[in-house]
Amino acid sequence: MAEKGRKILVAVDEGDESMYALKWCLNNVISENFKDTLILCYVKKPRAVYTSMDGKGYLFSPDVMASMEKYSNDVAQSVIDKAKRACKHLNDVKVEIAVELGDPRDMICEVAEKLNVDMLVMGSHGYGLIKRAFLGSVSNHCAQNAKCPVLIVKKPKSNGGNDKH
Amino acid sequence: MAEKGRKILVAVDEGDESMYALKWCLNNVISENFKDTLILCYVKKPRAVYTSMDGKGYLFSPDVMASMEKYSNDVAQSVIDKAKRACKHLNDVKVEIAVELGDPRDMICEVAEKLNVDMLVMGSHGYGLIKRAFLGSVSNHCAQNAKCPVLIVKKPKSNGGNDKH
Repeated sequence: MAEKGRKILVAVDEGDESMYALKWCLNNVISENFKDTLILCYVKKPRAVYTSMDGKGYLFSPDVMASMEKYSNDVAQSVIDKAKRACKHLNDVKVEIAVELGDPRDMICEVAEKLNVDMLVMGSHGYGLIKRAFLGSVSNHCAQNAKCPVLIVKKPKSNGGNDKH
Repeated sequence: MAEKGRKILVAVDEGDESMYALKWCLNNVISENFKDTLILCYVKKPRAVYTSMDGKGYLFSPDVMASMEKYSNDVAQSVIDKAKRACKHLNDVKVEIAVELGDPRDMICEVAEKLNVDMLVMGSHGYGLIKRAFLGSVSNHCAQNAKCPVLIVKKPKSNGGNDKH
């Protein structure tokens, strides 16, 4: 076991799988004895251009845009709050928060590199089923592109039967 | 940190990267305090049919076949010996060996499932450059198909400058 504290980045999102990955990491990787630092990273997806139009090509009003923006912030806050609650029993582990805006696949790798973390932990799915079919999985991308070791945690399918993926 | 000892499977092969992954795992994941079991897994590739012919379609003699078989066993033994040497400083960690024959991508996932391991650790490359271009990376396949958490460790490019990949 490393003598110095490690910096461990956990990518969290709205999915059950990322919360499962976080909890697995807390139980199996994080060590209070070694003064690990845990960084919870959430990436907000930017509004795509087409979302400022409805299906008929009308621009959404500034009110609608503002409420979508608020919704996005609320979701971010709720994910971070939930992740922080999962960590509240840790005494000697420093928990930091990183919220970024962009494509999760690139931003997670960038944050990992910028913060020079020792390990990146994530669930195996980071998008919904449809979007994943077009974009490929976030975890695959990060496993290939992040420079640090990447731990991909899957939520077991038999675990309570409430796996949404 | 988990209270019970964990079973951690490390896939080793001829490449520098898998040995780097093993060492990283010993320093950062394996814990003697928790009576972890470390399983070193090496997968021998089966002789493809075409290797029993030379370029002109003649069958290789049984002598040549036997010496290729011996070479394959020697390589397996040398990889396992090297991996065991890297673990020799561990006192309270049980080290087990699993040598299998087959496609590494499938066999590693099968061994992980059969032995019901808590984590699979591997380098990010498991084939040479050319073969990988056709088959995709072993680690990608395992990250998608293994049922347990998968930790993919890359050898940093700047580390001594002797990265063969």
